[in-house]
Amino acid sequence: MQQPRENEVSVLRYGHRPGRDDRMTTHVGLTARALGADQIIFPDNATQPAETVTDIVSRFGGPFDVQRTDTLNAIIREWSGTVVHLTMYGERVQDVTKKIRERCLHDHPLLIVIGGEKVPSDVYEWADWNVAVTNQPHSEVAGLAVFLDRLFMGKELEQEWADAEHVVIPQACGKRVVDAE
Amino acid sequence: MQQPRENEVSVLRYGHRPGRDDRMTTHVGLTARALGADQIIFPDNATQPAETVTDIVSRFGGPFDVQRTDTLNAIIREWSGTVVHLTMYGERVQDVTKKIRERCLHDHPLLIVIGGEKVPSDVYEWADWNVAVTNQPHSEVAGLAVFLDRLFMGKELEQEWADAEHVVIPQACGKRVVDAE
Repeated sequence: MQQPRENEVSVLRYGHRPGRDDRMTTHVGLTARALGADQIIFPDNATQPAETVTDIVSRFGGPFDVQRTDTLNAIIREWSGTVVHLTMYGERVQDVTKKIRERCLHDHPLLIVIGGEKVPSDVYEWADWNVAVTNQPHSEVAGLAVFLDRLFMGKELEQEWADAEHVVIPQACGKRVVDAE
Repeated sequence: MQQPRENEVSVLRYGHRPGRDDRMTTHVGLTARALGADQIIFPDNATQPAETVTDIVSRFGGPFDVQRTDTLNAIIREWSGTVVHLTMYGERVQDVTKKIRERCLHDHPLLIVIGGEKVPSDVYEWADWNVAVTNQPHSEVAGLAVFLDRLFMGKELEQEWADAEHVVIPQACGKRVVDAE
C-alpha cells in the first residue's frame, strides 16, 4: 500500500460485511472524502464501497485515494504518526480535539479508525486517542463527520476539487449542476 | 401527531424503503437524538427504525420523541415554524447557519428534512432554506450531524439525559458503562 504523505489524514474502516454493510461503509468513504480526509482505507472485502467511492472521485474530483487491504491491524499498529479511534466509549471530542490537532502538527500523518462490527480491545490500546462524539449510540458516519469538521475547524468546507467532471453550484432552491471546464 | 413545542427541533426522514433503508434511517434517528434534536418523524413504513430508536431512548435516556406518519408532505407544507431541507444542491452551510439560528429565535419550531430516496421538487419549494453540507455527494447522516453540531454550536454535546438505564463514562482507553441511579 502507498505510504501516506506527511500532512495527510487517512480514514480506516475497521471491519466490513459485504452486502449488509455496503451502504454504511460507502458512506464512511464518501464522508471522509467530502469532509477533508485524503485517503480511505477499506478492508479487502469492501469491493463495492471501493468501486462507488472511486467512481465519485472520478466524477466529482479529488485528490482522494481509495485503498483496500487485508492488513488492517498492522496498519494501525505500525502507523508512523497519530492514531485516533472513534468510539462512543472514548474521551469527549470537545475535550480532546484541540490537543489532537496540536499533536498532529508534530506527529503526522493522522489515521482515524472507524469501527464497523465489534472492534477488538487491541485497537483501543494501539490508538493514541479513543474519542467519542457524544457517549451515546448513534452512527459511525455521524461521528466521523463531526470529528472531521471540528478537526479542520470548518476549513474543509472551502476546499476545491481537481479533475471533476461535474460541479454542483449552490442554490437557494432547486438543482444546478454544470460540467467542469 | 403531537404538536411540537415552541423551542423544539424536529428531524423528518423523507422516504424509506423497508429492509434496504432500515439501517440508514435508524442512523438518521439516532443521530438526531444524540446531537440535540427533540423529535424524529419517520415515514409510516419505518417500523423497524422506530422500534430501534425507541429502544435506545428507553436504555440511554431522553427526552426524545419518535413519531411515524403517513402525511410527510402535509407536515412539511403546513409546518408552523422554519423548515430546513438538507441537500447537496443547497446553499452552503457555512453561509446560512447563523441566519437560520437567528430566524429560529422568532420563527420556531424548526423542522429539518433529510432526504432518503428521490425528494420531489415541492420539498425544495416548501423549505425556507435548502442547505448543503458541502456540495459533494456523501451521506445524509453526515450532513445531519454537521448541521446539528453547527446549529447548536457544540452545546448539544453537553446535554444531560433523563431516565437512562445505562450511562457511558468517557475513558481514555477501554469501555466503562454504569447503571444509572
